[in-house]
Amino acid sequence: MNALTPQRAGLITDLYELTMAAGYWQSGKFRDVATFELSVRSLPPQRSYLLAAGLEQVVEYLRELRFGPEEIDFLRKHPALAPVKPEFFDFLAGLRFTGSVWAVPEGTVVFAEEPLLRVTAPIIEAQIVETYLLAMLTYQTTVATKASRMVQVAQGKGIVEFGTRRAHGSHAGWLASRSSFIGGCRGTSNVLAGFDLGIPTYGTLAHSWMMSFEEEEDAFRQFTQVYGADSVLLVDTYDSVEGVRKALHGNLPFRGVRLDSGNFLETSRAVRKILDAAGRADVQILASGDLNEYAIAELLGQEAPIDLFGVGTDLVTSRDAPALSGVYKLVEIESGGQKRATAKFSESKISYPGAKQVFRFPGRFPGRTAAPDGQYDHDVLGLASETYADAETLLERVIENGELVRPLPSLEQLQARAAGNLARLPARHRQLEASDSYPVEKSQALRDLLESVRSHYFAAPVAAGGEKKR
Amino acid sequence: MNALTPQRAGLITDLYELTMAAGYWQSGKFRDVATFELSVRSLPPQRSYLLAAGLEQVVEYLRELRFGPEEIDFLRKHPALAPVKPEFFDFLAGLRFTGSVWAVPEGTVVFAEEPLLRVTAPIIEAQIVETYLLAMLTYQTTVATKASRMVQVAQGKGIVEFGTRRAHGSHAGWLASRSSFIGGCRGTSNVLAGFDLGIPTYGTLAHSWMMSFEEEEDAFRQFTQVYGADSVLLVDTYDSVEGVRKALHGNLPFRGVRLDSGNFLETSRAVRKILDAAGRADVQILASGDLNEYAIAELLGQEAPIDLFGVGTDLVTSRDAPALSGVYKLVEIESGGQKRATAKFSESKISYPGAKQVFRFPGRFPGRTAAPDGQYDHDVLGLASETYADAETLLERVIENGELVRPLPSLEQLQARAAGNLARLPARHRQLEASDSYPVEKSQALRDLLESVRSHYFAAPVAAGGEKKR
Repeated sequence: MNALTPQRAGLITDLYELTMAAGYWQSGKFRDVATFELSVRSLPPQRSYLLAAGLEQVVEYLRELRFGPEEIDFLRKHPALAPVKPEFFDFLAGLRFTGSVWAVPEGTVVFAEEPLLRVTAPIIEAQIVETYLLAMLTYQTTVATKASRMVQVAQGKGIVEFGTRRAHGSHAGWLASRSSFIGGCRGTSNVLAGFDLGIPTYGTLAHSWMMSFEEEEDAFRQFTQVYGADSVLLVDTYDSVEGVRKALHGNLPFRGVRLDSGNFLETSRAVRKILDAAGRADVQILASGDLNEYAIAELLGQEAPIDLFGVGTDLVTSRDAPALSGVYKLVEIESGGQKRATAKFSESKISYPGAKQVFRFPGRFPGRTAAPDGQYDHDVLGLASETYADAETLLERVIENGELVRPLPSLEQLQARAAGNLARLPARHRQLEASDSYPVEKSQALRDLLESVRSHYFAAPVAAGGEKKR
Repeated sequence: MNALTPQRAGLITDLYELTMAAGYWQSGKFRDVATFELSVRSLPPQRSYLLAAGLEQVVEYLRELRFGPEEIDFLRKHPALAPVKPEFFDFLAGLRFTGSVWAVPEGTVVFAEEPLLRVTAPIIEAQIVETYLLAMLTYQTTVATKASRMVQVAQGKGIVEFGTRRAHGSHAGWLASRSSFIGGCRGTSNVLAGFDLGIPTYGTLAHSWMMSFEEEEDAFRQFTQVYGADSVLLVDTYDSVEGVRKALHGNLPFRGVRLDSGNFLETSRAVRKILDAAGRADVQILASGDLNEYAIAELLGQEAPIDLFGVGTDLVTSRDAPALSGVYKLVEIESGGQKRATAKFSESKISYPGAKQVFRFPGRFPGRTAAPDGQYDHDVLGLASETYADAETLLERVIENGELVRPLPSLEQLQARAAGNLARLPARHRQLEASDSYPVEKSQALRDLLESVRSHYFAAPVAAGGEKKR
C-alpha cells in the first residue's frame, strides 16, 4: 500500500531539491545555514482570511525524515544525478533534520504574505523539505479555512465532514478530517481519522442498505432492531416525505432522519411538520449532498429546520478555491560567518527578505479607528528582530536543533484556538464575501531591507509592487 | 507517519459502511451477494470525456484489505457500534476480500453513467470498500483526464507534472504523478513516484539556489560545474532576459533555460532570439508557473517558442473541476438464491439497476452518420447479459474470488492505451470546450429493467429522467 515509512520520507520531494542539494554539497555550500519562510502569496478571491493548519504533520515529518538504503541506491543510479560524486550519497544516507522551526500555531488566523513557518537549518536540510511542507501546510490550511466558513454561517448547527470519498485519495481524506475539525466541524465520517486522532466519527446508513431490502419499511425496521433509538434513518431513497411517513407508521425507534437529495428547504419543512404532528419534535433532521457555506447560509437564512449538515466534496476539495499560492522562499543565508538577506524580484512574484515575524495589534490603538477591545485591528509584517510593545507575535519556536521544544496542543485545543481567533477577527473581515480586507502593513525596517537587497541587483530603486498603502 | 499498512486498510472507510456491515451481519444478510457499480453521475461542464485511472491502487487495496487487532479493538469500543454483538468483530477480524471485480482498464475513455468498475461480493465486503474505491478512482481519473487535455493541446511539446507541492497532501501528489503519466505527461518532479513507479523524474534548480549565491552569474557557474551540458538554468530570479544574457556571457554549458514568471509569450520570444543569435539554437525553453490547457493552447496558438511545459497546481488539483460526482451503487442483490435488480429513485439522482456493460461502437454503423473507420461512434449502456456483434466491450474481468485474473498492464502500456483511445474519439468530442457531447444510449433491456424496478415502488410508470433521446 506504499506505506509512508520514515525511510521513504526523504524521497517525498521534487527532484530539483536533490539536484540542488548535490550542488550545494559539491560546491562546498552545504555548511551554509539557510532560513526559508513558507507563506501564501495572495488569498484566493473567495477568501478573506486563512486558518493555519498542518503543523503537527510537518513536525512529524521533520523528525522522521531520512533516506533508506534502497532509496539511496535509487538516487545513485538516477541519470540526473550521474555527475554527482559518490560521497554525496553517503552524506544523504546519514542526513537528519537538525534545524530550527518557528511557526504560527495551528488554528491561528493568517493573511497573505505572512509566514506560516520559518525554517533555519543547514541549507541542504532546509531545501529538501520544501515540497512536503508546502503540500502539507497549504492543504490543511485550505480545508481548515473552508470548514471555518461553513461553521460560521451554521449559527450553532453542527457541521460534520463526510468527504473522504471525494478527497484527492484517501490520505487527503484523512488530512481533511483533521483540518476540518480544527476549523470547527463536530466530527468526520472517516474511521481512520477517528482511530488515529480521536475525532468523533459519524455515520449510520446509505442507500445501499435501503436497496438491499425489497421494502423500505423492512430496511428501516431491520436497522432499528440493531441500533434502536440511536438510529438515524435515510429517508430519500424513493421519496423523502413518504419515507418519513413509513418510519412513523411502523412506530420505529429513531432519533434522526437524513435527507440526501432534492430541495432541502421544502423537504425539511415538510418532514419537520410530519414529525411534529406525530409528536416526534425530538427527531433531528440531517441534510447532506452538495452542500457548501453558501447553500447552508441560504437554508438557514430561510429558517430551514435542519439540525446538522453533512458536507463532503466542497469541504475536502475546497471546490471554489482548491489550491493556495504557497511559497517557500529563501530569506536569509549565513555563509562563512556572514549573514545576508535574500529576495526574489521575478515579475509579480517578489519575495521579502529577512527572517520575519507577524505583529498583530489588538484592541484600541492610538491614532487609529477604534476596534472593540480584543478585536484584531491590523498586522505588521516586520523583521523578527523588531519589537512592538502593543502587539501579539504569531510565530513561535517549535523545533530547536531538530528537537520539539514543547508538546504540541491537542486537536481540541486547536479547535478552541481557531474559534477564539475568529471571534477576535472583526466580522467585516470574515463574511463569506468580505469586501473589506484585513490590513497588513510592512514595517519600515522590512521595506528598507528590501530596498537594500534590491539595490544590489538593480541600478535604480523601484517602488515596491503589491504593497498596501493605508 | 501514519503508514498505510494493510492492518489499517479496513478503517479507511466511512463509519456508516461499518454500521451497515454490522447491521447486515446481525440481520442475517451477510450471506447475500451484492453487486455494486462505480460510475460518475455527470461530467463537469468543463469536461467532455474522462480517462479512467486508479485501478491498480484499487486492486492493491482489495488484496490487502484487513482489520488489525488494535483497529478491531477500537471498533469494539466505538459508541456507534455499542449495540452490536461481539461476534461481529470476530467476523471482521477475519474478513478478506473474496469477491470479483470487473473494470474498465486504466487509460480508457469513459463517459457519465458508464461503470468504471463493478464489484460482486458478499455484501459486507462489497459495502466497506466503497469509500476507498471512490476516492482512488475518481481522483486518478480526474487528473489523468486533466493531463490528457494538456497533452492534446501541446502539439507534441512535452508536459511534465510539477505539482506535488500543490497537491492535497503529498500522497495526492504521488497519485497525481501516476495518473498524469497515464494521461500523457512525460514525467514528474516527484522522486518517490519515480522510485515506486519508474516514472521519469525531472528537475534542476529553484530560485533558492540562485538566491543562495550573491551573484546570479556565480549561481549559474557553480551549477554548471556540477551538471555540465545537462544543466537547465532558471533565469527569471531577477530578470529573465538579463539572466539568459549572463548565462551566455559566461560561456557556460547548458541545454535549457526555465522561465517561471512574467509574460511567457513575450519572454520566450525574446529569450529565443538571444539564444539563436548566440548560436545556441540547441537550447530548449521550459516554461512553468500557473499554466493549464487554456494557457498552453493560447501560447502555442501564437507560436510561443516553448519546448516543454511544467504544470503544477491546475493539473494536480484539476482546479476548474476538482471533483467528480462519483457514485457506487447497489445494482443487484442475491439473497437466498433469489436475484433482484435494485435502483434508487431519489430526486435527480436516479441509479440504473442490474449488472451492466458498456458497448462501444466504432467505425461505420448502419443507419447512422458515418464515422471514419475506427473512430468511436457511440456507446450503448446495457446489461452485462446483452451482446452486440459490432461493439467493443469496456468492462473486463480483473479479480475473481479475490485473486487477480492476470497481471495488470505497465504504466507505459496504460499511457499508450490512453493515447490510442483518444485518437479514436472524434475530435469534436475532445476539444477543450466541446459543445457536442459523445452519444451514450441506454439499451432497451436496461430501460425495461428500470421500469420493472420502478413499478415496484411507484404506482404509475414515469418517463425516465436525464436520458438522451437521439
